[in-house]
Amino acid sequence: MAVGTLATVKSLDPRELREAGAQMILANAYHLHLRPGDDLIARLGGLHRFMRWDGPILTDSGGFQVFSLAQLRTVAEEGVEFRSHIDGSTRRFTPESVMEIERNLGADVVMQFDHVIPGQSDPASARDASERSVRWLARCLEAFSRLEPMHGHQQSLFPIVQGGIHDDLRREAAAAITAMHDWSGYAIGGLSVGEAKPDMYRMLDVVNQALPSDRPRYLMGVGFPEDLIEGVRRGVDLFDCVAPTRMGRNGSVFTSDGRLNIKRAEYRSDERPLDESCDCAACAQFSRAYIRHLFVSDEMLGMRLLSLHNVHFLVALMRAARAAIAKGEFDAWSRRWLDRYHSRSDILA
Amino acid sequence: MAVGTLATVKSLDPRELREAGAQMILANAYHLHLRPGDDLIARLGGLHRFMRWDGPILTDSGGFQVFSLAQLRTVAEEGVEFRSHIDGSTRRFTPESVMEIERNLGADVVMQFDHVIPGQSDPASARDASERSVRWLARCLEAFSRLEPMHGHQQSLFPIVQGGIHDDLRREAAAAITAMHDWSGYAIGGLSVGEAKPDMYRMLDVVNQALPSDRPRYLMGVGFPEDLIEGVRRGVDLFDCVAPTRMGRNGSVFTSDGRLNIKRAEYRSDERPLDESCDCAACAQFSRAYIRHLFVSDEMLGMRLLSLHNVHFLVALMRAARAAIAKGEFDAWSRRWLDRYHSRSDILA
Repeated sequence: MAVGTLATVKSLDPRELREAGAQMILANAYHLHLRPGDDLIARLGGLHRFMRWDGPILTDSGGFQVFSLAQLRTVAEEGVEFRSHIDGSTRRFTPESVMEIERNLGADVVMQFDHVIPGQSDPASARDASERSVRWLARCLEAFSRLEPMHGHQQSLFPIVQGGIHDDLRREAAAAITAMHDWSGYAIGGLSVGEAKPDMYRMLDVVNQALPSDRPRYLMGVGFPEDLIEGVRRGVDLFDCVAPTRMGRNGSVFTSDGRLNIKRAEYRSDERPLDESCDCAACAQFSRAYIRHLFVSDEMLGMRLLSLHNVHFLVALMRAARAAIAKGEFDAWSRRWLDRYHSRSDILA
Repeated sequence: MAVGTLATVKSLDPRELREAGAQMILANAYHLHLRPGDDLIARLGGLHRFMRWDGPILTDSGGFQVFSLAQLRTVAEEGVEFRSHIDGSTRRFTPESVMEIERNLGADVVMQFDHVIPGQSDPASARDASERSVRWLARCLEAFSRLEPMHGHQQSLFPIVQGGIHDDLRREAAAAITAMHDWSGYAIGGLSVGEAKPDMYRMLDVVNQALPSDRPRYLMGVGFPEDLIEGVRRGVDLFDCVAPTRMGRNGSVFTSDGRLNIKRAEYRSDERPLDESCDCAACAQFSRAYIRHLFVSDEMLGMRLLSLHNVHFLVALMRAARAAIAKGEFDAWSRRWLDRYHSRSDILA
């Protein structure tokens, strides 16, 4: 999923995203509640109409943002009180109020409100947050079932498996969640938040065993190409990450041979496209030399072209992974892909 | 002409420009000489190829920039010595060196190097600069004729009629220029630089009489909708102005009913397009409420959509003017158009 936190994938428009092959967009309930307001978006016909995206949209609940961006949090069993990172105003999120916000926004998939903690939290804190997330999930489900969809289409509520980097907590969370309801999809939260890679992969292996295999799994906030491939290897279907657009705005480019930074002097007169095996609109038209010139001159088109290329790159990577799975060749394909991606350390951005 | 000073019309890509109806783009020899270098662009195949614009391009010579942006100018008959506004390095422009730069860049129309002075200069300074510009024109023509086009297509050199706001100086400049050579087009410079509107219109009337009627006239650095209409009324064919993109980046929008500022609170829940009689890609898809949200949230897509709309608006205005001229109804059409444009002072941005 391309990340469109504020109902826009930074610098790109819906047509470009469609042409880059993006199918689904992620937006954020916390951010949109604060600005422009989920009530306003509801009045204007919901998120799809507001941002003119007719493909599927998923809204994150804001659990992560409440615990990372907002100030002066007070967590109680009832919910979280915090101050807006925009104007300092006091706000209160509960599982029930977040379901109202997400019904207002009208995304196709809405995430439960959960208690998010840092990646290296001790087992006691991790257990506390994970168990609270399960209790909040039950309240989300109750509120979600009570509220009607507002914009003429159904919505699906996804639970989030928490549990830090503790096998038993992850297993217990997955068991409690699957016992509660027959969910149409499952999210895996609290990873890629500072823990070591082997810990993340181990958690994915654990959760992969514990979740029903006929429902999509969504690994939240991940990732980079290596992470996507390792996630797919462990049964993950959906990902989101700000990396392609954030890196694009900083001049960093995914290529089949690794990352490069377009601002480097060596690209000054380089007539090649960003990635010679890419068919995105940026690579089809423009040279590295031109895009470097745009970056050096602080021209917005440079950020657009790199954001577009990076989104296209990850979407194409997932398309290739699906094709390899269908042919039963995922392991061999992924080894070849990663070998090439890591072969050129000299061009790492 | 849409303004693409640094070989990019700020925030827009070539396809959007084509779809908005833009036919010709202006770039700037001074800026491109400093960054990324006209020698680099020449090596990469010229401006058209560098920026992927296959329509006509015009390069301004940098006369205006040398006299407005650069520091520590020394003007002599030979040329101008100045310091780069980017790195303070000492540079020297002569009519001959500027022709080399413009041959390197390879635009379809290239402007002479001229001596530009402020709008309200006294007659003696205006005469000095205007006469120097004519002498420099002769040197530009000599150098331009000596140098071959580099990128496989012909280029046209346009002279610039200077003379401040002095009828006699404008007449003398036009006479000297038309006597020198049978030019394929003529530019009118040194207007819209601080003088009163009636002075600008009077100069256009004077020059309109003095220039051959079968060649295009280009009024440099103009303008806003009213200026375009008053220029067309006085025989002008070509215009350029940063207004549509610069205003777009600031939230200011041209509409048939006057200008509006999208950041104002009254547009918070406004479902209408920017201009109900516009068929640009921004108006066809997005509400004022959505675009206001993008601006309030500092999202780049907002600047893109307003830049696109404003460019489209001026191009559509010129298309309507041509149709009115062809029907012999320009006066009536322009009165109606201006009346409507000025009728809603309440929405002025």
